[in-house]
Amino acid sequence: MNKSCINVGILGWGTVGTGVSKILLNQNALIAKNSGVELSVKKIVKRTLPAAREGVELPVDCLTTDPTEVVDNPDIDIVVELIGGTSESRTLISRAIRNGKHVVTANKALLAEHGAELFQLASEYRVSLNFEASTAGGIPIIKTLQESFAGNQIHSLYGIVNGTCNYILTEMHDRRVDFSEVLKAAQDMGYAEADPTLDVEGIDAAQKLILLIALAYRSNISLSQFYVEGITEITQKEIQYARELGYVIKLLAIAKLGTDNRVEARVHPTLVPERSLLANVGGAFNAVCVIGDAVGPTLFYGQGAGEMPTASAVVADIIDAAKSVQQGVSASISRAWLAGSQSEVDVSPIDDIETRYYLRFVVADRPGVLAMIGTILGNWEISVASVIQKDPHGMETVSLVMLTHSAREKNMKAALAEIHTLEAVKGETKLIRIEEEVDF
Amino acid sequence: MNKSCINVGILGWGTVGTGVSKILLNQNALIAKNSGVELSVKKIVKRTLPAAREGVELPVDCLTTDPTEVVDNPDIDIVVELIGGTSESRTLISRAIRNGKHVVTANKALLAEHGAELFQLASEYRVSLNFEASTAGGIPIIKTLQESFAGNQIHSLYGIVNGTCNYILTEMHDRRVDFSEVLKAAQDMGYAEADPTLDVEGIDAAQKLILLIALAYRSNISLSQFYVEGITEITQKEIQYARELGYVIKLLAIAKLGTDNRVEARVHPTLVPERSLLANVGGAFNAVCVIGDAVGPTLFYGQGAGEMPTASAVVADIIDAAKSVQQGVSASISRAWLAGSQSEVDVSPIDDIETRYYLRFVVADRPGVLAMIGTILGNWEISVASVIQKDPHGMETVSLVMLTHSAREKNMKAALAEIHTLEAVKGETKLIRIEEEVDF
Repeated sequence: MNKSCINVGILGWGTVGTGVSKILLNQNALIAKNSGVELSVKKIVKRTLPAAREGVELPVDCLTTDPTEVVDNPDIDIVVELIGGTSESRTLISRAIRNGKHVVTANKALLAEHGAELFQLASEYRVSLNFEASTAGGIPIIKTLQESFAGNQIHSLYGIVNGTCNYILTEMHDRRVDFSEVLKAAQDMGYAEADPTLDVEGIDAAQKLILLIALAYRSNISLSQFYVEGITEITQKEIQYARELGYVIKLLAIAKLGTDNRVEARVHPTLVPERSLLANVGGAFNAVCVIGDAVGPTLFYGQGAGEMPTASAVVADIIDAAKSVQQGVSASISRAWLAGSQSEVDVSPIDDIETRYYLRFVVADRPGVLAMIGTILGNWEISVASVIQKDPHGMETVSLVMLTHSAREKNMKAALAEIHTLEAVKGETKLIRIEEEVDF
Repeated sequence: MNKSCINVGILGWGTVGTGVSKILLNQNALIAKNSGVELSVKKIVKRTLPAAREGVELPVDCLTTDPTEVVDNPDIDIVVELIGGTSESRTLISRAIRNGKHVVTANKALLAEHGAELFQLASEYRVSLNFEASTAGGIPIIKTLQESFAGNQIHSLYGIVNGTCNYILTEMHDRRVDFSEVLKAAQDMGYAEADPTLDVEGIDAAQKLILLIALAYRSNISLSQFYVEGITEITQKEIQYARELGYVIKLLAIAKLGTDNRVEARVHPTLVPERSLLANVGGAFNAVCVIGDAVGPTLFYGQGAGEMPTASAVVADIIDAAKSVQQGVSASISRAWLAGSQSEVDVSPIDDIETRYYLRFVVADRPGVLAMIGTILGNWEISVASVIQKDPHGMETVSLVMLTHSAREKNMKAALAEIHTLEAVKGETKLIRIEEEVDF
């Protein structure tokens, strides 16, 4: 079989769908030249039919409200799912696969939850299920992990994969304003959702981490298995102390190969050295550092969201699927979730990790407090690398900031519990983990 | 056809060849899990048989001095060319292709010179000719341009693609020592060749730029068609003035889509904003910025050379070829050089580019010189953005440093010729181009 024109059906015509249709319609000749495939947009499904959109001239009868006109359409080779959610999208993707269609999706939530089921199905029907756009938008991190680094044991991976959080933290660093103020401005400008919970609480980053871990370690983990902390508790005090100590605070999605076949997986605000490339990833941009045993340290930077960057990734996936259609071969589908390819990898509990810490205690301003805290930390085998305590100017309580050397999280928790029994320690202690390995 | 084990033959067992054999022998199970292909190293050709190497246990009878045992061997599916040069490698690759074998090469010089011929041949015989390792070592920039950004019109591309030059420039910035001193130290440590000409004169970077332009613009250009300038004329004075003005000097390989279907291609030292990611790519590392119309600005960072990073890229290419063998399909070969896919793209002469400039004049320390130079520049429609002239402390000549706004190179040359007729202008003027577009 050698089809001359490959037909594409798109489920969902929102921001990304519009971008995809723009590229497929306006860059048809470029794609044919670059890749040798001719793509045609056959059907686009939109729940409510919109008015015409600028920059997109759809073929007659292209728009429909009925998704079966795509997933059951014998003329359509590739189905692009851009409706989001985990219910209807799951049903429609499954149905498209059973109809022998290749599928492209940008749906991280769906794959994070039902990846194993959907990839197994795609494998049975020998079709591809491509998902480059699901993580880090236009950055080709999925293909890189899956193909370019296939000969590497991945040592670790650090991702700035949520643009909203990175925008908020960058503004907090640059303009010295508080979280709530930046969030409001970001919402007004459309950089943050009206309900920002999934972003600012780290859930979105965690879903992407699940996909990255599936690729890097062939391990199918779920949200409940690992530690996720958002950026809502980051204050200007933390930003300023971090900067004074030579660090910048970023929300990182982290995966590391540990001992005993265990993988560390966690999402939390992290201090990274201010001269590092990762610290200098500003605004709504994304970046992923991957450290492989052969390739060494690498970094991939680009726009993690938005109409055209995400569409760029979707179109690359469509082209890959189209090549399989054109050659009449079964697709090279992602092996990450397939039962036979999976590793028996456990997730380390957060208590077992070892890392450096930033701590800010709020303490009564009187002699001996530093010594008491230092003693308790020492008893738990936590050694202090640096301390800042500023002249209090007659305040009742002062901030006592410490960076520790590497320590076990379990010990840290126990030490903090003990420290909080001290009468001189007032209120909550801020704890932020530090990553030094990204210092390039 | 569904071969269970794919046989690989390697031509050349130097640094990279050793790395490739290490990965194929030691990470066999990992590769099978990641990619579903089983690879076996069948033959390795080495002109003179070496003693055993640490970390590599080759199968019996694997080593040979006869390359025909690889390229004519019916058992071998994939031939990996790592002997370098443009003569024997060309003959052996052609022969392997004619024998129906997929080829993987890291040979940028060969492809820069004979790419059109070799890709045409590979297309005829329907085999792949993969070359990820030829440019930027472990960074998957070839696959990214070819596949991930296939739906993008590439607006521009800026690469730090020569590790030796980047190491030397980084040391010159950080340790404030002169070019010749750093070069000697780099040679002593093995970071630079005994004859460093290809590196420090920009030829190596230019060969890589030819490959990147073939992919980004499907244009087959040759070394003689574009401007190449190395780093041998960069002095501490330039480094220091650049820093004072907020810039860092990097050797960049630059490609830009211009008007009238023309592409700018050039390799030269470049001032880049010191806060940009590109400015912070230090040591022997490589980075490539690609700006696409859909994806926007992106950056890819990693080790551009060395045994294991380069081997990582070679192995990824082998795995890609192995998937084609396994599926029994003709490979998806690079269309960049194929006649039917090529664009009619001309290279803009350097005289036609427009860019900002750093200029350092050496002038007699007397009144009116600045005005005379400014007048001539103005007459050629070159406007000055900033000037530094330091207190001379009784020297006969002083440095007069200017940054210009964007100007046409042809005008700049004419202006400089006129300025050099001034009696007050002594000796050579330093000119370094500035790129602001990489300011992210």
